Amino acid sequence: MSVYKIRYGTPEEIVPSKFAPAPKCEIIEGMPEGAEGMIFSTSKRGVEVLIPVDADAGIYGFGLQLKRVQHRGRKKMIRPNADPSGDTGDTHAPVPFFVTNKGFGVYVDTARYASFYCGRELRPENAGAIDNENDTSPDVEGKDASNIFDTLYEVRKGGKNSFVTVEVPIAEGIDIYYITGDSIRDIVAQYNMLSGGGCMPPMWGLGCFYRCDMKFRDDQVLDIAHQFREKDIPCDIIGLEPGWQTRAYSSSFVWNPTNFPNPQETVNALRDDHFHVSLWQQSFIHPTSPLYEPMIEYSGDYLVWKGLVPDFALEGTKKVFGGYMKDNLVSMGVDGFKLDECDGSDFTGSWTFPNCAKFPCGADGEQYHSLFGTLYQQTLTEALGNQRTLGEIRNLGSLAASYPYVLYSDLYGHKDFITGVVNSGFSGLLWTPEVRHAENRDDLIRRIQATVFSVQALVNAFYLPEMPWEKHGCTDEVRELFRVRTSLVPYLFNAFYDYHTTGKAPVRALVCDYQNEPASLDIDDQYLFGDSMIVAPIISGNTERDVWLPAGEWYDFFTGEKFEGGVHHRAVSHIPVYVKGGTVLPVAEPVNYIERETVFDITLRAYGEVSDDAFCTLVEDSDDSYNAEYTVHKITKGTGGKLGNRYNIVGVEEIK
Amino acid sequence: MSVYKIRYGTPEEIVPSKFAPAPKCEIIEGMPEGAEGMIFSTSKRGVEVLIPVDADAGIYGFGLQLKRVQHRGRKKMIRPNADPSGDTGDTHAPVPFFVTNKGFGVYVDTARYASFYCGRELRPENAGAIDNENDTSPDVEGKDASNIFDTLYEVRKGGKNSFVTVEVPIAEGIDIYYITGDSIRDIVAQYNMLSGGGCMPPMWGLGCFYRCDMKFRDDQVLDIAHQFREKDIPCDIIGLEPGWQTRAYSSSFVWNPTNFPNPQETVNALRDDHFHVSLWQQSFIHPTSPLYEPMIEYSGDYLVWKGLVPDFALEGTKKVFGGYMKDNLVSMGVDGFKLDECDGSDFTGSWTFPNCAKFPCGADGEQYHSLFGTLYQQTLTEALGNQRTLGEIRNLGSLAASYPYVLYSDLYGHKDFITGVVNSGFSGLLWTPEVRHAENRDDLIRRIQATVFSVQALVNAFYLPEMPWEKHGCTDEVRELFRVRTSLVPYLFNAFYDYHTTGKAPVRALVCDYQNEPASLDIDDQYLFGDSMIVAPIISGNTERDVWLPAGEWYDFFTGEKFEGGVHHRAVSHIPVYVKGGTVLPVAEPVNYIERETVFDITLRAYGEVSDDAFCTLVEDSDDSYNAEYTVHKITKGTGGKLGNRYNIVGVEEIK
Repeated sequence: MSVYKIRYGTPEEIVPSKFAPAPKCEIIEGMPEGAEGMIFSTSKRGVEVLIPVDADAGIYGFGLQLKRVQHRGRKKMIRPNADPSGDTGDTHAPVPFFVTNKGFGVYVDTARYASFYCGRELRPENAGAIDNENDTSPDVEGKDASNIFDTLYEVRKGGKNSFVTVEVPIAEGIDIYYITGDSIRDIVAQYNMLSGGGCMPPMWGLGCFYRCDMKFRDDQVLDIAHQFREKDIPCDIIGLEPGWQTRAYSSSFVWNPTNFPNPQETVNALRDDHFHVSLWQQSFIHPTSPLYEPMIEYSGDYLVWKGLVPDFALEGTKKVFGGYMKDNLVSMGVDGFKLDECDGSDFTGSWTFPNCAKFPCGADGEQYHSLFGTLYQQTLTEALGNQRTLGEIRNLGSLAASYPYVLYSDLYGHKDFITGVVNSGFSGLLWTPEVRHAENRDDLIRRIQATVFSVQALVNAFYLPEMPWEKHGCTDEVRELFRVRTSLVPYLFNAFYDYHTTGKAPVRALVCDYQNEPASLDIDDQYLFGDSMIVAPIISGNTERDVWLPAGEWYDFFTGEKFEGGVHHRAVSHIPVYVKGGTVLPVAEPVNYIERETVFDITLRAYGEVSDDAFCTLVEDSDDSYNAEYTVHKITKGTGGKLGNRYNIVGVEEIK
Repeated sequence: MSVYKIRYGTPEEIVPSKFAPAPKCEIIEGMPEGAEGMIFSTSKRGVEVLIPVDADAGIYGFGLQLKRVQHRGRKKMIRPNADPSGDTGDTHAPVPFFVTNKGFGVYVDTARYASFYCGRELRPENAGAIDNENDTSPDVEGKDASNIFDTLYEVRKGGKNSFVTVEVPIAEGIDIYYITGDSIRDIVAQYNMLSGGGCMPPMWGLGCFYRCDMKFRDDQVLDIAHQFREKDIPCDIIGLEPGWQTRAYSSSFVWNPTNFPNPQETVNALRDDHFHVSLWQQSFIHPTSPLYEPMIEYSGDYLVWKGLVPDFALEGTKKVFGGYMKDNLVSMGVDGFKLDECDGSDFTGSWTFPNCAKFPCGADGEQYHSLFGTLYQQTLTEALGNQRTLGEIRNLGSLAASYPYVLYSDLYGHKDFITGVVNSGFSGLLWTPEVRHAENRDDLIRRIQATVFSVQALVNAFYLPEMPWEKHGCTDEVRELFRVRTSLVPYLFNAFYDYHTTGKAPVRALVCDYQNEPASLDIDDQYLFGDSMIVAPIISGNTERDVWLPAGEWYDFFTGEKFEGGVHHRAVSHIPVYVKGGTVLPVAEPVNYIERETVFDITLRAYGEVSDDAFCTLVEDSDDSYNAEYTVHKITKGTGGKLGNRYNIVGVEEIK
């Protein structure tokens, strides 16, 4: 398991690694053994890298792709786009990193819209010394027209002279990070450590999150918050949408005095009722904003919505823009942000700057698009000072694992959203399949099931005056789902601690852990939730699905029913969730909100044959700051009683 | 009405004009008056051109866009793509040409994937001396959150410092053609004359066209052809799909002996029954093809479907590849081709070459993608010798007006297909909303209505063993629609003659002729069919629609009902088609096929108040070759009897 850095030519100045935190892994300079078949070249087009791949290699990654998990045979152009409707590589969060099931992954350190051709065949005389194993190319002889469409699709598998062809426009050189490892999970973990390790949210950030109607006045916000407590529905964070500002497209960053005459009182009232407070914003600065004049010198040359585009790579921006957020919003008790529109609505409206825009830091518009979300959240994270958070953002990119922001989208296809959950774990990203409106009761429940089993359990009701479950008459079911969520927060917090310290993604595709089982290779609608659970959401509109389980024994999380590995046809009203046999799973008594004083009463569920020394861990932090100290409690099924300040083991439940 | 050529820097070698026919218009070198506000620059990104536009200018063009007619405020990246699912500029046939309703259009002579930002605002200090008229930007003061989404969408209209920003990657210089004119119609006509004038199909090419099931054997093809004659349904061309070959993905270009043991006999039988014969192909050369070995030296460095990618820019390819088609297919009586897959299925499969591929002519993959369809059809057109044709193709691009090929798509959204009809006329392209399967009877009829009122009346039954109207039990209605089509062939042939000699597109958006009526500016679902008819297809799934008619009197083509200009709500079973008051419309007695001996019996329909010297024209050609001589018959409502060899005026019908 190693990370190699291969430099070719002279890389550009503006690259993701320049703005990323320090790597937390060893980096070996130079070409690794076994990778000598790579071919580098430059032309007026930019840099081209050919990376040999076996004909049967699976290829994963490229960021928050919503249409496909396995990219073999496909072209992906790594382009940020707010409305990625096709399977082209466009996404809210593109990442020039891919990982194979053949022991390696490749990160290309560029802020350019690089193209990856995931397995193309050169004419033999152009392919150099390459002679890949496992040529699965179709027999060229003997087929006639009866199977014309077979051959059409067959070739995608690749042939003898297959490469991943990477094109990086404009650049005259490039740094490639070639990462080796025994499993996709371990290779991605190394990529995440190269990114500075995974983020560590405060525990409350993993609780339940509700964003209010953008038209709400202060009393309406407080009323909906009150309803959560009154109806006994867990909720940790209340978010305000654009309407808190006087102008939002572009943003004024000033409280709207009509709807929020006393914002400090509103924030206080929410905090007193044990809510954290998150404010929506997008970064373009409206002419009426007090930030407009002071930010002129720190902005790009194009306007968006008549507003300035801040250059977040500059120290001046961090000081002026970040300072404003700190002095005016963080100081009053706001401890989270939702950062909208930084993914570039290039093709939606005129809601972004051109790729040829110029920024004072030296980036052009293309590079700035790739870095926009990353730099924006760095400024806001700094404005929050030493408070950990878990915010929302619509763009991230390379080397982003350490950032405490979860991606979301204005798209709303439920299948796409689940594919997003699966894919996010390949590229150091967090993603929520957030819930907005629902077509009907079933749609709402299916969507809430999926968000509850994701890194951020988020309901974004920004155009809904009432809680959506009220409308659909399923408050009891939804309450129960949120309670399940809070019961798993200690388990999930532990998974984040692993992410933070080892790079292992808390939510990831099955192929990450089970690549030796061929059935795992193309699964795009199931995922690991922590190390011990497999989640297989039923897509809205369906009442049943097939589930694939790896070899071994698995247990239904809700019913305890036992399954052998293989494919199961499932017709269920709840969400299919499975726990691996041999697991000690810590399940907490649900709580309505999480504070530092909260002590979780934990029942240990022992699934199947659990030996006496089989264990799980539970992590507690000393505070919500970045300097927190962590205690890792090792727990066997014999553990009982109070552990540290956070956990109280109240019993064991054997499930066989 | 003038065409100016403005050179900046040193343009690339491989540009569309290098491969285009000689212009048929005067070209003035240098900057026109009124265009001095353009700003040119270069950087390592390539060439950038800023073109000032009024805040309220409409912007049209960019080739076969299927999602939108008016592009103001949008970004379009001019990228060929076989599956353009979003509104991004991707299309089968991208063209770096746009036209405004402010007296000018701009063609950018590049084979690069240029980006057009159609109205972006620079910060005033970056905008130079520009101070555009008609700033429609929203008031920046006084709005509060209640109308946040208003301001979101309002800004798209543009502000004081608005430009079309054009980015041409890689290039170090560029030729821009700046075309002035009083109307969009005239500006586009000039662009088409710059392209060598519009194409002039043989009259049979405008008849009805049926493509057979790809699995058909020879007897099944002859049977379906026979059914047309037996059932009295007009048909001029029979097309064969991939199954005629031994291998199709990639192509062998060899008749499949199982299904077509005696291809010459099959072709002869079709020709004897008055059908023209069109063969499907795609250009990638299968290893088993007799063309493989001789074409190795004339091909690019990547394989597609294991096949060679011919470099059609080379004389050698024209000789070897074109010569093969001539000697083996044209010689046996084939007189049309359908050229598939040349649009690049970049994002669909691995069914094309990368943008960094290298071709012997010196083009890279990006440039070759932009030129692929153009060069491919040039080779096939040459192979056909001196026979005019009207084929099908899935990619064209710049300066393509003179090419006798109609675009089609594997997409099938009916609304998108109608938008394609409207847009094709802005960019020198022909497009057919071809009919394949249908959901139901109504779907089939709506789709056939639209294809009948397009440049190519095409049913592509490549996966349908029976004629689709048999399945849906509407043979009589469909026969009637095809008969209407043949009754308008003389009228349409006349419109093509205008296209050929003046550049005026035969099918075009209403805004081309009526830009002074603001209601025309955004219409994306009605079009002019020739000079005198407006077609407003009812999109499949609907039974009614609104129709906008320009000022003046209009008459329903089918019923003769009179309408005043304005908006009408229409609920109809047929397709809404209108004829302009004052028109003499030549309507032929339907024929089942068109031969050189065919004489059209024409009834002159005089709509509304038609003065004695009001006239239309009818054109006849001396033969189907490129050297044909044309006779233009001027016809008033007093004209009668035989005219030349083609037309016989049998009567006048007054419609008031």
